[in-house]
Amino acid sequence: MSERTVKPRLPRGLVDRNPADVAATDRMLAAIRESYELYGFEAVETPFIEYTDALGKFLPDQDRPNEGVFSFQDDDEQWLSLRYDLTAPLARYVAENFDRLPKPYRSYRCGWVFRNEKPGPGRFRQFMQFDADTVGASSPAADAEICMMAADTLDALGLKGKYVIKVNNRKILDGVMEAIGLGGEANAGRRLTVLRAIDKLDRLGWEGVLLLLQGGRRDASGDFTKGAGLEETQAELIRIMLFNNPQIPIAEATRQYLPNHPDITPSIQPGIDELSQIEMLIKDAGYLDRVKTDRSVVRGLEYYTGPVFEAELTFEVPGEDGRPVRFGSVGGGGRYDGLVGRFRGESVPATGFSIGVSRLYAALKAVNSPIVAGAVKRGPVVVLVMDRDAESMARSQRLVATLRGAGIPAELYLGEAGMNAQLKYADRRGAVCAVIQGSNERDKGVVALKDLIAGAELNKGAKTLDRDAFLALKQRAQIEAPENELIAAVRAVLARYA
Amino acid sequence: MSERTVKPRLPRGLVDRNPADVAATDRMLAAIRESYELYGFEAVETPFIEYTDALGKFLPDQDRPNEGVFSFQDDDEQWLSLRYDLTAPLARYVAENFDRLPKPYRSYRCGWVFRNEKPGPGRFRQFMQFDADTVGASSPAADAEICMMAADTLDALGLKGKYVIKVNNRKILDGVMEAIGLGGEANAGRRLTVLRAIDKLDRLGWEGVLLLLQGGRRDASGDFTKGAGLEETQAELIRIMLFNNPQIPIAEATRQYLPNHPDITPSIQPGIDELSQIEMLIKDAGYLDRVKTDRSVVRGLEYYTGPVFEAELTFEVPGEDGRPVRFGSVGGGGRYDGLVGRFRGESVPATGFSIGVSRLYAALKAVNSPIVAGAVKRGPVVVLVMDRDAESMARSQRLVATLRGAGIPAELYLGEAGMNAQLKYADRRGAVCAVIQGSNERDKGVVALKDLIAGAELNKGAKTLDRDAFLALKQRAQIEAPENELIAAVRAVLARYA
Repeated sequence: MSERTVKPRLPRGLVDRNPADVAATDRMLAAIRESYELYGFEAVETPFIEYTDALGKFLPDQDRPNEGVFSFQDDDEQWLSLRYDLTAPLARYVAENFDRLPKPYRSYRCGWVFRNEKPGPGRFRQFMQFDADTVGASSPAADAEICMMAADTLDALGLKGKYVIKVNNRKILDGVMEAIGLGGEANAGRRLTVLRAIDKLDRLGWEGVLLLLQGGRRDASGDFTKGAGLEETQAELIRIMLFNNPQIPIAEATRQYLPNHPDITPSIQPGIDELSQIEMLIKDAGYLDRVKTDRSVVRGLEYYTGPVFEAELTFEVPGEDGRPVRFGSVGGGGRYDGLVGRFRGESVPATGFSIGVSRLYAALKAVNSPIVAGAVKRGPVVVLVMDRDAESMARSQRLVATLRGAGIPAELYLGEAGMNAQLKYADRRGAVCAVIQGSNERDKGVVALKDLIAGAELNKGAKTLDRDAFLALKQRAQIEAPENELIAAVRAVLARYA
Repeated sequence: MSERTVKPRLPRGLVDRNPADVAATDRMLAAIRESYELYGFEAVETPFIEYTDALGKFLPDQDRPNEGVFSFQDDDEQWLSLRYDLTAPLARYVAENFDRLPKPYRSYRCGWVFRNEKPGPGRFRQFMQFDADTVGASSPAADAEICMMAADTLDALGLKGKYVIKVNNRKILDGVMEAIGLGGEANAGRRLTVLRAIDKLDRLGWEGVLLLLQGGRRDASGDFTKGAGLEETQAELIRIMLFNNPQIPIAEATRQYLPNHPDITPSIQPGIDELSQIEMLIKDAGYLDRVKTDRSVVRGLEYYTGPVFEAELTFEVPGEDGRPVRFGSVGGGGRYDGLVGRFRGESVPATGFSIGVSRLYAALKAVNSPIVAGAVKRGPVVVLVMDRDAESMARSQRLVATLRGAGIPAELYLGEAGMNAQLKYADRRGAVCAVIQGSNERDKGVVALKDLIAGAELNKGAKTLDRDAFLALKQRAQIEAPENELIAAVRAVLARYA
């Protein structure tokens, strides 16, 4: 080693995935894919790196140096970024291929995205999303369909009765903001601050949100986030319109709580109308038990222009302090009519939904869904090595090749340890069966097969089992078979635990 | 649009993937995965971002500002990089989890990697690799096994008889370099330049390599690459040992070509011995027709320490100038005993093989492999929209829901176009069947089904078909069914083209 030793470690907010994670996630993604294809969506994928200006700046929490996104300069000095979601790259893709795509264009994609944010529990800097989007349909039927598809997908994943898809319309909040004097280009920054404050209700509660709507808030680590500077009456109007019994119809809420704000109705009317249309379609399709309107949903991303959705799991899990908390959001989306338009100079209607795959995977584990629980995957058959001369190795290699030829996953032990360590290795690999052929067996033309599960029972029961049971187990734990019957004999051992 | 219009475009060397690419690649990856699992390898995945020092600097072509790798600073000023291969992150993973992993540790992983290099034809800045590695086995049996697995995998992908897995040993080149006076720490840089020059034989031919071994080479674009500064006699010795009939046994080559270099034999002997052991195992397993030793294989990555492998496709495709050229390399690998050791301060034996997935996909398309050709995927059933009032939309939505409930991919047309454009849309989606229910059909309690493939034939044949054939086709192209028999009727149309 000419270099000094390097510490093996991962940067914060990044994790490795073990075989069980990889396999369970693959099963989960296959179920989502099937659900999306049933709705007529087709696959399309974009690369991880895009021009920074093509992605745009729509992320919340852009208070860190690299503004929420990992960015670097190309050798022609143009800025590149790792994608922070799958929606902005889709907008670029649709704009670039606009004329040759069918419209409405329904597509889905699954992939890793990156956020240069402060990592925390369950908050990663690389995570997976699974998105479906309909571009080129302005009808609320497109929004309603996306919500119903989200519901069907969660049903297919074994979460029936354990979630609600919440629907709202960004135009209602926009209308409220206009009514309290935050309309117009000059107030764009403050509107964004209000939006992000409201999106944090889950984590901070109304008291925390109120601080962010007014002067600002200092978090536990001492970091200070500047507020939107609203007066108390302005913040109160937001509270009433969004959080005060948000399930009651907004027209009624207006009459009940806002007799002194007659001017609020026209500014929020477009949002209310779209929301009612979606609600009617959902009711008619029989999804009202799973898809519900809720005025407190706003979504933190800046690019939404109308309906917004949030998939919330309603069951409880132990929180950080051990007390039960709602599992919460596993996905969301909405209508973003301006995002493709950034490239084309004309508005292009688009709506979509994004599943947070890592969060959803955690949820499926929490409810022990069969999708992720599945059967324990057994390890390969391990052929042990007794003699290491070239001829013996070649003979053992042939045993392995015979098994593989029959479609049985198998391997030759390739390390340098002795018999006991080799058996331990086979156990650690999750193997059910080990194959041994020393010189004794070779001379007799046989192979010895160890049933490793019976062997483990034997070890545990050595002092407690009666003689007959012990002998029966011993007989089960190791058998001998003619070499030319290797495949059948191994299959018989594997079949004991299939 | 308050922003100016942005041009939708991708940075050079990056591409989007369409539905056919995504589906075909998935089938290809599944076949590779199955082959690797048959050999007892298990999945593990690492994130895309690592500490720059954990990845190390082993890439060729580090003459660009960012040195071949996309890098950026974290907010604690530590340097992070996008992974440039899957081997360096695996070494970090194994070192970090060393004590809890079974050894030998066999694992596989598939994923995107990034190179900040000059893109060119078939040369991308984001591409996919599929790796398998055995860590903790110093035996040449581990190397031989990896080569045989590579061969089995290419067989499984339909490339039987169309490839050769070439095996060599880096120690032979090291020995030659020692013999010509390039040994020792002081010459490490020049050795690397020699290595990279030799690795370019495929692209540049011996004349180009010779320039890089001596003074240097200016490429077509005018860029100059400095050479290793060898004298003619030194370069000639490399030519003889590596390229002069590289298939003949090296001991014989030494006697035949190098009577005046008696000191070369001891320095290349370790490499020759390992290579013979691998050759014997391969011969014994019956893979000599597919796995062959070839002294010209060196691999451009700096971290290899012994055996190196290259999977080369031997069939020809049209080259850039239209003349046929060998398809060439689709993967490679080798032994890298120092890579895990960088973290542990002791050498850890490891060997692996990496498939260039994008290159291999191009190859499978070139030979029209059934893995990528597959069946044409049909689009969903499209329910057309005649009336757009809320009640009609809800009725149409119910038809779609009925089909989906029966597991038939289906969608409601969500755009605003008229009948003809809707039929064109269904064609572009690859749909076989469109469902129509206008007020006429509704009043009769029926649905009209259009067979879009028969419809297309009808349009083409309108002027050439005789009356009977025309009427038969017309009858086939549109049928009517009772609404409560929708599923069976749609299935009957789909079955015509299954």
